[in-house]
Amino acid sequence: MSAPKVQLLLTGNELMTGDIVDSNSAMMAQVLKDIGLGIYRKVTVADDLALLVSEITYIASTSDILIINGGLGPTVDDLTAQALAVAIGKDLSQHPQALAHLTNWCQQRGTELNGPNLKQAILPKDCQIIANKKGSAVGFFVRYNHCDIYCTPGVPHELETMLIEQIVPTISEDLPRDLITDVTRLQVFGLGESSLQKMINEQLPEWPAAIELGFRAGMPLLEVKLTTNTQKGLSMKSAWQKRLTKVLGDHLIAEIKGKPKSLAEHLLNQLHQHNLKITTAESCTGGLIASKLTEISGSSMNFEAGFVTYSNEMKTAMLDVPTNLFEQYGAVSEKVVIAMAKGSLVKSNADLTIAVSGVAGPNGGTEEKPVGTVWFAWGSIDNIKTQCLLIPYKRYKFQQFVAAIGLDLLRRYQQNITTIPNYIIERSFTDQ
Amino acid sequence: MSAPKVQLLLTGNELMTGDIVDSNSAMMAQVLKDIGLGIYRKVTVADDLALLVSEITYIASTSDILIINGGLGPTVDDLTAQALAVAIGKDLSQHPQALAHLTNWCQQRGTELNGPNLKQAILPKDCQIIANKKGSAVGFFVRYNHCDIYCTPGVPHELETMLIEQIVPTISEDLPRDLITDVTRLQVFGLGESSLQKMINEQLPEWPAAIELGFRAGMPLLEVKLTTNTQKGLSMKSAWQKRLTKVLGDHLIAEIKGKPKSLAEHLLNQLHQHNLKITTAESCTGGLIASKLTEISGSSMNFEAGFVTYSNEMKTAMLDVPTNLFEQYGAVSEKVVIAMAKGSLVKSNADLTIAVSGVAGPNGGTEEKPVGTVWFAWGSIDNIKTQCLLIPYKRYKFQQFVAAIGLDLLRRYQQNITTIPNYIIERSFTDQ
Repeated sequence: MSAPKVQLLLTGNELMTGDIVDSNSAMMAQVLKDIGLGIYRKVTVADDLALLVSEITYIASTSDILIINGGLGPTVDDLTAQALAVAIGKDLSQHPQALAHLTNWCQQRGTELNGPNLKQAILPKDCQIIANKKGSAVGFFVRYNHCDIYCTPGVPHELETMLIEQIVPTISEDLPRDLITDVTRLQVFGLGESSLQKMINEQLPEWPAAIELGFRAGMPLLEVKLTTNTQKGLSMKSAWQKRLTKVLGDHLIAEIKGKPKSLAEHLLNQLHQHNLKITTAESCTGGLIASKLTEISGSSMNFEAGFVTYSNEMKTAMLDVPTNLFEQYGAVSEKVVIAMAKGSLVKSNADLTIAVSGVAGPNGGTEEKPVGTVWFAWGSIDNIKTQCLLIPYKRYKFQQFVAAIGLDLLRRYQQNITTIPNYIIERSFTDQ
Repeated sequence: MSAPKVQLLLTGNELMTGDIVDSNSAMMAQVLKDIGLGIYRKVTVADDLALLVSEITYIASTSDILIINGGLGPTVDDLTAQALAVAIGKDLSQHPQALAHLTNWCQQRGTELNGPNLKQAILPKDCQIIANKKGSAVGFFVRYNHCDIYCTPGVPHELETMLIEQIVPTISEDLPRDLITDVTRLQVFGLGESSLQKMINEQLPEWPAAIELGFRAGMPLLEVKLTTNTQKGLSMKSAWQKRLTKVLGDHLIAEIKGKPKSLAEHLLNQLHQHNLKITTAESCTGGLIASKLTEISGSSMNFEAGFVTYSNEMKTAMLDVPTNLFEQYGAVSEKVVIAMAKGSLVKSNADLTIAVSGVAGPNGGTEEKPVGTVWFAWGSIDNIKTQCLLIPYKRYKFQQFVAAIGLDLLRRYQQNITTIPNYIIERSFTDQ
């Protein structure tokens, strides 16, 4: 027996105008995932009776479960009860249990039960009430055409409580026992979606269909997802995950458990374990690396100071970069970025540093050092590494990637990984 | 002639699993509203070929315009081109223009055009290409069954650029002439949506229905939108806009023409006009203010250095903050933030500064200085202003707001505005 097919029908003018972003359906998906159910189709419509009736009729004939969200309120544009009644061919009538809830609700708040409120007790005949602990609008349930239809309130916290406490337990009772959903998510950095797909095609050509591979391009991390819904997939999964992990190599940042962590958070966790302090010397990122680090709560244990040295004068004043280096090599050069790194370590007493100097653009590029050129220096005072990259993105994305690459270079250093990936384009020249 | 009927079809497994919240469709709704178009139905499905084909077929028979979003990527689960080809009964073939774009895209980035990338050039025969300035996946267009079908990329900034620069102008050409849409957008800072709505209700109670008022809460700026679709509304608009401007007072940052500017960009423009240099001394924002400034191209003309002084020791080492101030008043105090401001001006030779010290949380709060407390100091060496606020947001949002308020305080200073708005909660105590 396979998993029931679930569809969502969301209703509300505000969902169509862009005035609000729908977060309810993501929440419902997450909650249903916990009992092994996926949502396979979702329809969103304005508060329009004819449209609602036609959607309900169609979905009820093509799914096992339909969750309708929204349209339970007291105003004239709340049409869910009416639309459902028409779709399933029932009359509307005052539901005694719903009326009792409303009376009780108003009494507790010292308000009078008025006309618009009363409308919330007028429901399709013979429907079952679903309690709403958090609001005046009760939910309701009917079974029609072999489809279980749940009508739920649009207010997010009312919906969440009703879903978790009432609806999910009901659905779970009817679920087949052999239902399996197993999801693993991996965080990857330094590989694009298409390069990774190519690597998998080439190195793991026999990837089994029973383990679904998905990619999600975060900025700047890539998320790789392995999903399986079958006993067969599950039995093969650990072996194939190991093979994939090998292909990912040192690009694999971590397996995600719960909320994904940022590169800065992974790095800070490492530093924290070894009781190491980090500092930053930033030119083209202008404080972005420091701000990524300090975004993490508890970062003060491992970060005390950052230097944003945008002009040459301030590189010298704050980090003691010798002025002759600018004349001889230019601000975007290996010599300067090394001097920045050393200066930041000396001035801050930190153990490790990330220094960057580059041409963020759109102006300031030359033939020798075009827009997108960036020098990195990282490491500890007696072991500073360097790298030059050409990052072909516009200013904002350039800065985000430089910050991310800087953090990743230090992660690799800290893990004793000596290979440096071809993040974007490695520039082969040195300016020595 | 009435407005064309628009539907959206969104595709992506990540949209069904709740891993991401769909913000694309809200953005599309806002952009289409500017040319007088509403979206009347929206369907979201997983990456499933049969389902996509059936949705496209049905929608094409019931709408004038269908915008498909997502599924243009290089991986096997990107199915839009294939599904569209099946739905409209065309073969797939390599499109020379799409291939040229991909070749060019890879060349500029010095990467090789690989198999997965090539897939992005395999499109339904005879489709028209829609340029993608921001990414590798071109969009494409077909007219089928009297429906205009636009296929667009799922990456938000790629979609937005394509929509605004390519698709909206095309759709506009075909719109009936009697469809008037006049939109003015104003950027506001320091007022919440509900406070502003209340001010308008009280001070402009006769606001005409013919001029629709909309709010869009940006982070951290609020966008106020005046829309009119009638000749009557148009004739009254300039007078009512003047009245609204008066109500907004010094909270009005600017009228938006084209792409909205950030607070940092507005401030830098002012500084540039007066040839003034700015610096920053940041504790709780950890480099965020500096990074907001340096995000703006050309910022090097007015920004040379920023100081990220997270620990007390480094506040003293980098900015000469006297150590006795920490013992006597604590790091989050007026005295310390003034000393940080002065130190940053002396060390950087800048004309103006923003200094902040606060408790970002979740730890580190006390009864006297709870999480969310922040001291600001700003101005020039002989005229430093201070302010203490309690900002009741969690760490990330707290840091974003502190940075924005710091920038706004300096904007007011620079414009000789002496009033300080009640941004969030002003704390009345001083620690002197």
